[in-house]
Amino acid sequence: MTNWKEIDRLAKSWVKEAGQRIQESMKKKMTIETKSNPNDLVTNIDKETERFFIEKIQSAFPDHHILGEEGQGDKLTSLDGIVWIIDPIDGTMNFVHQKRNFAISIGIFENGKGKIGLIYDVTHDELYHAFRGEGAYMNDIKLEKMKEVPLEEAILAINATWITENRRIDPSVLSPLVKRVRGTRSYGSAALELAYVAAGRMDVYVTMRLAPWDYAAGCILLDEVGGTYTTIDGKPLNFLENNSIIAGNPAAHRTIFTDYLPHE
Amino acid sequence: MTNWKEIDRLAKSWVKEAGQRIQESMKKKMTIETKSNPNDLVTNIDKETERFFIEKIQSAFPDHHILGEEGQGDKLTSLDGIVWIIDPIDGTMNFVHQKRNFAISIGIFENGKGKIGLIYDVTHDELYHAFRGEGAYMNDIKLEKMKEVPLEEAILAINATWITENRRIDPSVLSPLVKRVRGTRSYGSAALELAYVAAGRMDVYVTMRLAPWDYAAGCILLDEVGGTYTTIDGKPLNFLENNSIIAGNPAAHRTIFTDYLPHE
Repeated sequence: MTNWKEIDRLAKSWVKEAGQRIQESMKKKMTIETKSNPNDLVTNIDKETERFFIEKIQSAFPDHHILGEEGQGDKLTSLDGIVWIIDPIDGTMNFVHQKRNFAISIGIFENGKGKIGLIYDVTHDELYHAFRGEGAYMNDIKLEKMKEVPLEEAILAINATWITENRRIDPSVLSPLVKRVRGTRSYGSAALELAYVAAGRMDVYVTMRLAPWDYAAGCILLDEVGGTYTTIDGKPLNFLENNSIIAGNPAAHRTIFTDYLPHE
Repeated sequence: MTNWKEIDRLAKSWVKEAGQRIQESMKKKMTIETKSNPNDLVTNIDKETERFFIEKIQSAFPDHHILGEEGQGDKLTSLDGIVWIIDPIDGTMNFVHQKRNFAISIGIFENGKGKIGLIYDVTHDELYHAFRGEGAYMNDIKLEKMKEVPLEEAILAINATWITENRRIDPSVLSPLVKRVRGTRSYGSAALELAYVAAGRMDVYVTMRLAPWDYAAGCILLDEVGGTYTTIDGKPLNFLENNSIIAGNPAAHRTIFTDYLPHE
């Protein structure tokens, strides 16, 4: 019998410990590499933090699987068993440029179902956390169930990339949506933006491309507050692949899907 | 002889006191009105906070002038003498939706020259402050002089509005700029975004329309770290009127002005 409460307790303590290590590392010099393109940064601290989690998990739970952004975990082809999906530093560009507005993001799944979601805003010491069936919290504060907000009163999380010429969507598709909402924001960390949506600070998030470690924890938070998430084609997310995403309050999600996105 | 150090000391203490009052008010119910359009929100707390500053200033410095967002100050036609330009809550939409990511912004001018700039991120208790000739700070931390950053490595603060159909600029003008920079962000408070630029967390900020209270303090911070700011036509800002703005590190400012904006 899996002791989920013990997994939850340990995961939280490791996240806090990793956050402290990141804070200390920030005072020293960072080594910055670029991954696939010049804007896809990775630091030694990203890699060390992932390594830290892998060692902790493998030592405490040798039968759990790990999918991590920096690729030091397992090569997974299914979500069978217990899987930790980890982004050691989500928002690396913010981490490098701002030393804030980044997060540790961890989603823990059992046979494909989200059980525990943790998003830790290190700089502000704010841990967004959810345990399946028990609600979502920011530190000690319980997050409220989502309200249905009409788009005209909604704040949309979207990066300017998706309404500029890009490889994934014609900029004219989402531009009218930007005009309709009350305002748009882009904070530069998908995990934090999903946490913000779960906390009701923004209403809906749209992006054309995220990896599983960017959204795994956020989706588990959203489950607990009544949020909806799909690809922009309205399909369920595949937690082993990159996806486009609309995530947020069900009314806004429905309207965006119906009014703005092309249907086959 | 004007005692600027005493003005600075008092202004800072009032900003902190106003911040505490805002924190307390946030716990109570907010009354929200819309100003010129449904997205231009104002709360009772905006107005009360402006009133608080006006009373403090008029009592301590009866000969100073006040220009405030909520219009309870003076009707000014010049910047002669000492003028306080005040935004009691910059980022009211964030204040209403997020209860964070807003700021008190105060710029104090002497015959049109910026002397003291204060931007207070109330939720995070971070006061960005500058005193002419003595540098800029976040709390006790001195902000570094700006480095020249090429656009390819720059973070651009821009709202999606300006690359979507709008009344002020053709969206095709700034879209190529969005593609060229390393990334874009939009935090929803001009004052905080200018403070972020002054702190080196973002490199350049572009917007088509701001009022003096949105940027007055930010410009004084930028003066102290070697930043540049003009309208998008390359003209100096008029601190009594709405302006478009490019503000940031001189290299990025120059490149944007030369490569992206139409010249007469």
